[in-house]
Amino acid sequence: MTSNTELSPPTSKQLDASDQLAAYRERFVEPKDGSVIAYLDGNSLGRPLRVTAASLATFIQGDWGTGLIRSWDEKWMDEPTVVGDRLGDVVLGAAPGQTFIGDSTSVLLYKLLRAGLEGQPGRNQLVIDRDNFPTDRFIVEGIAAERDAEIVWIDPDPTAGVTPADVAAAVGPHTAVVLLSHVAYRSGSLADAPAITRLVKDAGGLMMWDLSHSVGSVPLELDAWGVDLAVGCTYKYLNGGPGAPALAYINSSLVSRLRQPIWGWMGASDPFEMSANFEPAANVRRFITGTPPILAMQPLKDMTELIADVGMAAIREKSIALTEHAIALAEELLVPLGVEIASPREPSQRGSHVSVNHPLFADVTARLWEQGVIPDFRPPHGLRIGLSPLSTSFAEVQRGIEAIRDVLVSLQ
Amino acid sequence: MTSNTELSPPTSKQLDASDQLAAYRERFVEPKDGSVIAYLDGNSLGRPLRVTAASLATFIQGDWGTGLIRSWDEKWMDEPTVVGDRLGDVVLGAAPGQTFIGDSTSVLLYKLLRAGLEGQPGRNQLVIDRDNFPTDRFIVEGIAAERDAEIVWIDPDPTAGVTPADVAAAVGPHTAVVLLSHVAYRSGSLADAPAITRLVKDAGGLMMWDLSHSVGSVPLELDAWGVDLAVGCTYKYLNGGPGAPALAYINSSLVSRLRQPIWGWMGASDPFEMSANFEPAANVRRFITGTPPILAMQPLKDMTELIADVGMAAIREKSIALTEHAIALAEELLVPLGVEIASPREPSQRGSHVSVNHPLFADVTARLWEQGVIPDFRPPHGLRIGLSPLSTSFAEVQRGIEAIRDVLVSLQ
Repeated sequence: MTSNTELSPPTSKQLDASDQLAAYRERFVEPKDGSVIAYLDGNSLGRPLRVTAASLATFIQGDWGTGLIRSWDEKWMDEPTVVGDRLGDVVLGAAPGQTFIGDSTSVLLYKLLRAGLEGQPGRNQLVIDRDNFPTDRFIVEGIAAERDAEIVWIDPDPTAGVTPADVAAAVGPHTAVVLLSHVAYRSGSLADAPAITRLVKDAGGLMMWDLSHSVGSVPLELDAWGVDLAVGCTYKYLNGGPGAPALAYINSSLVSRLRQPIWGWMGASDPFEMSANFEPAANVRRFITGTPPILAMQPLKDMTELIADVGMAAIREKSIALTEHAIALAEELLVPLGVEIASPREPSQRGSHVSVNHPLFADVTARLWEQGVIPDFRPPHGLRIGLSPLSTSFAEVQRGIEAIRDVLVSLQ
Repeated sequence: MTSNTELSPPTSKQLDASDQLAAYRERFVEPKDGSVIAYLDGNSLGRPLRVTAASLATFIQGDWGTGLIRSWDEKWMDEPTVVGDRLGDVVLGAAPGQTFIGDSTSVLLYKLLRAGLEGQPGRNQLVIDRDNFPTDRFIVEGIAAERDAEIVWIDPDPTAGVTPADVAAAVGPHTAVVLLSHVAYRSGSLADAPAITRLVKDAGGLMMWDLSHSVGSVPLELDAWGVDLAVGCTYKYLNGGPGAPALAYINSSLVSRLRQPIWGWMGASDPFEMSANFEPAANVRRFITGTPPILAMQPLKDMTELIADVGMAAIREKSIALTEHAIALAEELLVPLGVEIASPREPSQRGSHVSVNHPLFADVTARLWEQGVIPDFRPPHGLRIGLSPLSTSFAEVQRGIEAIRDVLVSLQ
């Protein structure tokens, strides 16, 4: 495959040379044998930190292998909320006592959405958009069916995402909970969370954000925005590893008022009292169900500390520079081949990935993977270029987009 | 602390010398600095395998760090059922297509119990015993409240556990699901699973076993016994690590008939179709909800292969020898001090832990932990001696029980 068009190389090189965060790239595990030329899917699965293998080895020898069951008393019982609070401080803009780590995003969606719906007596509508991630829609569909709730569907513009006007038109006196994704998984559009949250609360609804595609790449201020409920994925920009446990946030004003449906022992007021009846914990632990996934939380802890070192403002700045670079390259190299840019052009309106559409992208993605250029594909014809701020270089973006162009040319 | 009574040392020494499985103890991580004298809580948290740190390091560099998102297509999507089927073959007596790994035991209890209840129209009773583990009772309590089901309580003899006669008296034409623990978490009593399962099914009920305290230490034949549903914990005798994901079994006759309530994308017929409505997978994947905990499954995989090498029959034989030894030592050293043995004396009627009761055992346990002798305590006054067959020596049991005696003497 030959490259027909060459960008002037200094562009990416200059951007990398002046990148204040460039050195952090070395913190991540280098793929074996130089087999990955451009990893453009950090929005789907973040790369492992080098330190994580050592953290896990230390954990196995120490807390698990030596502390053994004593570690539950000494630290693990509090681990879901200790790690949650740290994430709240570093990433979420959340004061302590509102956040924990556990389950999967989907299970947390179920628990918190039911808690919210059942905490809104007299209100039976769940509001969600048709472009939301499937698991969010499916969970809403399932809960609506079993709890006899009504689903109010928002039909957003596929590129712009859900706007405050869309939400204003959807909420009313029957609104129980509104569930939206902060960054849309397809287009990467970034919702106006403060304005939408205010609108929903003014209508008497609870606002629940799915932060899966924003947490760790976009600054969050859950407390300041007045968010009621939130869940998020930790294996994307929080680099927790495949299937890492998820995060949940319940605003302090709701913690003792809401009750979730899965009454496991770890959500009980005293798990080791082994009492006859279930009495939920008074604090955020009432939203926990089973034994917390201690081992699986370790990689996430490493990434949280790295983010604390760098700061979310600098991460966002690099994220914007990366997506700007990707869009500029796509306009120069892909648009002439019939590719459509399906993400917002305005940096303040998008997260850390850029979507491009072309009818051949399913085939293109398969060929790219074979040559170590890794975006991902979302039906019907979207290719997502995910740009993890701490592990991605500008040159990598260029290599990736040049490869997309080359494969597209070869297939046309 | 001086030892007032010395057992003739050859007993434990001889047992260790003739132990065919003795060499496997070296497969486990040695606690640092010889700080653990006797680990008697493998029934609560199994020790890590040495190979697990290496497995995780390989995983981080390879499947995660190099395969990156491609690993989902290449292997991870099937990992919950591949690991489940392997566990089914090695440990559960379950043919492929009925088992998966995911969530926590508590969340799986919720999903499967609701699936079972809702799959039994016209039957509204959930049967459980008052000595069952708290999370089992709490989940039943929560589901009964939300689904308007009736709970039928069995009051078993605290040492003998739930008998077929207890079950026969509790089931009838309204029985939807019976949920029992195969090995009782307190007494270690082993239920007669084949007889009880037959009784429940004859009454038209579904039989659901919680295998948390038996899986990996007691041979299981779920298919042969005709079990309908089962869940189990993987961090006890399967050494999956603290908070490891749990296992679920759904009999093949029920897989396509039952439906669980948490409709996540990974339970959909085609997760990456991103379809408008939820259509459950036709196979056992329909019981999965969120993104499978791939990293967290690695330790469990290592232990499953070790069990496959050894075989469940040999593991059970050693387990019985260990509990027999513990009971003999307890009778000699502890009963004279007022301790009551609260586990069945007949080996065929107990699992791999032995419970002993004494009013001072809360204090005794705290002092034992400080000196590196680690059983656990269960209110009101039970001390559990958990004997993980592959990692526990007979001498370790003796050291542990001598330490219990010494502390008890010092406190009396």
